[in-house]
Amino acid sequence: MAHSYDQYREEMVGRANVADTPDLLAYYKRLETLGTGALWTVANKIEPWEPASTSVPMLWRYRDLREDVLRALDLVTPEQAGRRVVYLENKGRADVVAAVGWLYSGLQVMAPGECASSHRHSASALRFIMEGQGAFTNVDGHKMTLGANDFVLTPNGTWHEHGVAEDGTVCIWQDGLDIPLMNALEANFYEVHPDLQQAISFAVDDSTATWAGAGLRPAGAQWTKRYSPLLKYEWAPTYEALTRYARVTDGSPYDGILMDYVNPDNGGPVMQTIGASMQLLRPGERTKAHRQTGSFVYQCAKGSGWSIINGQRFDWRERDIFVVPAWMYHEHANASDSEDACLFSFHDLPVMRALGLYREEALGENDGHQPILS
Amino acid sequence: MAHSYDQYREEMVGRANVADTPDLLAYYKRLETLGTGALWTVANKIEPWEPASTSVPMLWRYRDLREDVLRALDLVTPEQAGRRVVYLENKGRADVVAAVGWLYSGLQVMAPGECASSHRHSASALRFIMEGQGAFTNVDGHKMTLGANDFVLTPNGTWHEHGVAEDGTVCIWQDGLDIPLMNALEANFYEVHPDLQQAISFAVDDSTATWAGAGLRPAGAQWTKRYSPLLKYEWAPTYEALTRYARVTDGSPYDGILMDYVNPDNGGPVMQTIGASMQLLRPGERTKAHRQTGSFVYQCAKGSGWSIINGQRFDWRERDIFVVPAWMYHEHANASDSEDACLFSFHDLPVMRALGLYREEALGENDGHQPILS
Amino acid sequence: MAHSYDQYREEMVGRANVADTPDLLAYYKRLETLGTGALWTVANKIEPWEPASTSVPMLWRYRDLREDVLRALDLVTPEQAGRRVVYLENKGRADVVAAVGWLYSGLQVMAPGECASSHRHSASALRFIMEGQGAFTNVDGHKMTLGANDFVLTPNGTWHEHGVAEDGTVCIWQDGLDIPLMNALEANFYEVHPDLQQAISFAVDDSTATWAGAGLRPAGAQWTKRYSPLLKYEWAPTYEALTRYARVTDGSPYDGILMDYVNPDNGGPVMQTIGASMQLLRPGERTKAHRQTGSFVYQCAKGSGWSIINGQRFDWRERDIFVVPAWMYHEHANASDSEDACLFSFHDLPVMRALGLYREEALGENDGHQPILS
Amino acid sequence: MAHSYDQYREEMVGRANVADTPDLLAYYKRLETLGTGALWTVANKIEPWEPASTSVPMLWRYRDLREDVLRALDLVTPEQAGRRVVYLENKGRADVVAAVGWLYSGLQVMAPGECASSHRHSASALRFIMEGQGAFTNVDGHKMTLGANDFVLTPNGTWHEHGVAEDGTVCIWQDGLDIPLMNALEANFYEVHPDLQQAISFAVDDSTATWAGAGLRPAGAQWTKRYSPLLKYEWAPTYEALTRYARVTDGSPYDGILMDYVNPDNGGPVMQTIGASMQLLRPGERTKAHRQTGSFVYQCAKGSGWSIINGQRFDWRERDIFVVPAWMYHEHANASDSEDACLFSFHDLPVMRALGLYREEALGENDGHQPILS
Repeated sequence: MAHSYDQYREEMVGRANVADTPDLLAYYKRLETLGTGALWTVANKIEPWEPASTSVPMLWRYRDLREDVLRALDLVTPEQAGRRVVYLENKGRADVVAAVGWLYSGLQVMAPGECASSHRHSASALRFIMEGQGAFTNVDGHKMTLGANDFVLTPNGTWHEHGVAEDGTVCIWQDGLDIPLMNALEANFYEVHPDLQQAISFAVDDSTATWAGAGLRPAGAQWTKRYSPLLKYEWAPTYEALTRYARVTDGSPYDGILMDYVNPDNGGPVMQTIGASMQLLRPGERTKAHRQTGSFVYQCAKGSGWSIINGQRFDWRERDIFVVPAWMYHEHANASDSEDACLFSFHDLPVMRALGLYREEALGENDGHQPILS
Repeated sequence: MAHSYDQYREEMVGRANVADTPDLLAYYKRLETLGTGALWTVANKIEPWEPASTSVPMLWRYRDLREDVLRALDLVTPEQAGRRVVYLENKGRADVVAAVGWLYSGLQVMAPGECASSHRHSASALRFIMEGQGAFTNVDGHKMTLGANDFVLTPNGTWHEHGVAEDGTVCIWQDGLDIPLMNALEANFYEVHPDLQQAISFAVDDSTATWAGAGLRPAGAQWTKRYSPLLKYEWAPTYEALTRYARVTDGSPYDGILMDYVNPDNGGPVMQTIGASMQLLRPGERTKAHRQTGSFVYQCAKGSGWSIINGQRFDWRERDIFVVPAWMYHEHANASDSEDACLFSFHDLPVMRALGLYREEALGENDGHQPILS
Repeated sequence: MAHSYDQYREEMVGRANVADTPDLLAYYKRLETLGTGALWTVANKIEPWEPASTSVPMLWRYRDLREDVLRALDLVTPEQAGRRVVYLENKGRADVVAAVGWLYSGLQVMAPGECASSHRHSASALRFIMEGQGAFTNVDGHKMTLGANDFVLTPNGTWHEHGVAEDGTVCIWQDGLDIPLMNALEANFYEVHPDLQQAISFAVDDSTATWAGAGLRPAGAQWTKRYSPLLKYEWAPTYEALTRYARVTDGSPYDGILMDYVNPDNGGPVMQTIGASMQLLRPGERTKAHRQTGSFVYQCAKGSGWSIINGQRFDWRERDIFVVPAWMYHEHANASDSEDACLFSFHDLPVMRALGLYREEALGENDGHQPILS
Repeated sequence: MAHSYDQYREEMVGRANVADTPDLLAYYKRLETLGTGALWTVANKIEPWEPASTSVPMLWRYRDLREDVLRALDLVTPEQAGRRVVYLENKGRADVVAAVGWLYSGLQVMAPGECASSHRHSASALRFIMEGQGAFTNVDGHKMTLGANDFVLTPNGTWHEHGVAEDGTVCIWQDGLDIPLMNALEANFYEVHPDLQQAISFAVDDSTATWAGAGLRPAGAQWTKRYSPLLKYEWAPTYEALTRYARVTDGSPYDGILMDYVNPDNGGPVMQTIGASMQLLRPGERTKAHRQTGSFVYQCAKGSGWSIINGQRFDWRERDIFVVPAWMYHEHANASDSEDACLFSFHDLPVMRALGLYREEALGENDGHQPILS
């Protein structure tokens, strides 16, 4: 049976609506021989009314994954594996190894005394520490010590390596990168450090000591890189900032108390292609649904609750990870009436904003709450 | 036969190099049931040493396409087709309807008295006029009259429509859009104008009369959009600027006399996701090869010559269109020793630059010239 | 008789209103011995309700000055004088050698074959050519040839020198500088070029050939200076831009057809501390009055007319120069009903804007026209 | 005796060097009648080789001023005085009521229960708290509570008022404003609040709770003002940031551990025309001399030491205030070998930088230390 060219027809003025005819079919065949095609046969497909993500909402429960992540310690060494990581695979994005959209995420595990080799790449990367003691990251000679819920950057183009101190414990953290985007944009470069291991060129944790002053910056510092000079955002001051902010704001109807991690040099996102946020849902808080261009990866950093994404409910507790695809409604709830809950997230909103594509929309009906699809 | 997981192994420190074993294969199966995978089985694939574009270099000769483009006049109306366009399909990018990378291009044809319906979309668009008289474009109420080699913008989010005056002739122009990128980024929105046709709200060609003063801008004008307020760049002053610049510069070893069309409000690219340039190759000029992140679509606006792309020679003359995929070496030559040759191009360098991904590299060996692959 | 401390009292809540008493007078004396004073004795003086410029509106008629300017040719050489210039002295600003506010202006005269020695300074400078042929300016090795109504920059920190070609004629131009501002800000540095004369390092008029493309910029050019890379703005394209713009705009009620000379690299002012504009008053045009923070120096470049400044009428014709002090109402009129009139101006609005001080206000009463004070 | 016109002659090529002659004297007289003058008679005066500030270095000892400041409580009410302030008068700047350059400073005193009326002005203002409890400032409805060494902004154009709580104690703080600059630039506007007292429109101290997160900002907050949304910088976190930074840096040879108060929205200065810094001199630290364009007002916030300014030694201890005029060498010393010393300062470097005038220079000779002038 012949291929049909009119499967995307729409009966609406301003849209392509051309029925196949013998003449047209012959014409289409002819165009194909020229390396061309008739736009009206595909126009309605490539110009949809609104985005329809190929990703699906998903949640990975930490209690389901943890044992298997730890098992990797016995199965491969960092030397063999490069990175000893279990990655999260979105059902709709297996072809590009993405957790959602163009964002990659995985759980990395290291034992005390291990240290991976140093490398750099076009992808921007971040780590969010899940458990263990003694983890560290070295970024361009700036060594940082890391504890649970600390958030650390390894930006585009920086030499970096991760390890765990000899006197530490097994550590697990979440990696977030935009490897899929770099590949899609055909701009991904990768290099292994010539010495495999960098020197520590600055006082340990100097980035935080230098750049984490609130409303203060080192005089005379000229920062010309396009990512944050503050490379580590510790959990304690982050949580304190959220609770302090909660006392003076009504918060967002969609996100409760939401703060973005920013580059103190200019107030912008921490890296050019990945942003990150921490949000606090107050006891009993139930937010309303909105949707945004851009994809999100969440990790529960504290407490428990649930999110409704595109009509589907996902229950989460500490260390669970879930994703919200682009332009899907999502709303959050804190399961506790007495404790707050915190969600860490990273996303590609800096890409959306840099390219003029950011858009958001609240759900108007049903007081802003999605019906749960069974 | 069982699926192999170790096909991407590399024998190099810092790269994944894990051979399949029964234990590991069992582990991989187990991970799949959890919506996960082992990074080391795919790491070398998703982190290549450098970009390898899925697009191929291609050239479309105008003399091959012209008759078929004109035939569309008889086969479909603008009303049926939405746009009467023959699009250019890159062999490696048929799935996303791209001419190269994430860029779409096509040849649109309209007869005197025709006018397409007005719409707007997230994709940024441009037109480059190839032939005919009486073409016009209306962008947000700014009507512009168009002649050969004129370059016109229809930016992201603007209402726009094209037509040909009753007393004009059949017109053909090249469309350039980033529809594929908008789809990939899951940020594509589309709307048909409620009245199907916009009013003309300003003096015809007011954008050029207002913003094309060299080193002059209308006092008090506050421009807050993120695309150029100058919507049309006419051929005559463009060619004059190139020839004037040629008198005082050595030019680029890779591109001869190359000027970027810019937003006069800030000197930046004309739109956030697509840039455009015009270049002049002096009589007898042969440039050297370089490669860049970013994809390019060229049209010969004047003269004739050839380009060597990734070792393949493509001869072009006026109105021919060819593409250079990301990170492929390319060099240009003017075939005439007495006349100059001009190449119009559009590209996604603004995306590369906005995201910190722009990189370029000259070919060092062989005095900068690629060997021709047979 | 004793000094009075209560001369600035105002009978209004929120203003200082303290009468001298013996106790207070003793207190004031005591404070003086400590290098201090009581704010309330001067508060109303130093915090006025609105600015009251110390400059006065003035007009210098070219026919009054020209002979005396030319006489300087016989009286001093450029070598003796440094610059052979007759400066314009505002009655209210003789102490700082300003034509108005913090702006200096003068008329410079040079004979064929003369060339002043090269120097540089913190002051930003400009020239506007009034008469003669063969004038040139060399700025950091970029030599520019100059004709009547051409506008040329010699920015802050650039080596520069002026001269007239051997085969030229006596030339007169207007200088504009912010020397008084540089002195007031205690930031004025001055250097004589070690060789007294610079080399010509680039093709003559390369700045215009490179940067005066309308909506075009040389690809790859990185401009990091904070002034315009376009150093000369020629009269013919400027006048053409004004007339073209006039066809599509209603213009400003206060200024007719007003365009700012801009830096093509970023669309901003030509220099950081001085801006410049050219405006066209259409035949018969009478504008309305407004006032602005910032000081203005005007020169009539074409035609004739008058301006009413702070209630005083000043009639001008070609080459006359007049000034508008800060926050004084001003309105303009073209005296001809058949010819247009053009006013060149320079001003310190870039300072006002950079410091967040720009403000403007229209005259509401009397249909926007000031009564003439006798 | 006749006025001499050649008093500024310099015997150097490139400088004006014209001796008075009878012809020239007649010419100068003639020029004066035309509202003009000969540039060469003043050129060397208005174009000095480098800045020579009209301000002098001065120090005001708090123990000398404190009693007289407190006496003002008995002499005037805030209602009468507008502000109850003793201002600091630089010997060289009495005409413009400046402490140094174009910067005003004074000591304000208020008793418990007092509150000044609300106003706003073009001048940018700041307060640095010296002593007392219960002080508060309300800026555009944001009320802030203030303690010793807290630094608070009342930016250009904001309604503001100061007071002391009923249950507080007598409070003294230092005011810093750029009133003299606003007057010099003829851009000073002043308004009394129509209600004399503003409402408190936000949670008390909401600015700090919202914007003082280190590396965090409230998501979705759009800040369009050109001053910092963080209005209060508290002492405790400031001192902590300095000590933390001191652990990882060698510091500046000229300033020890110096941090700038910044706008967290963009990393820039707190206001457009005034910047502020806090610096820590380590025990026994002696810095080297440098000089800068820009004027500085210092207050010792902790410890004791001395500064050498233009060869003059000024000893300071807590609460003493001293000034460094533009382009004068200055170096600092901590008098203690066991305790650190802290200096608060405010300055006009944002003006210098916005206008492209910032320059600094180290003292090369004598290992960077000035000889003390007797």
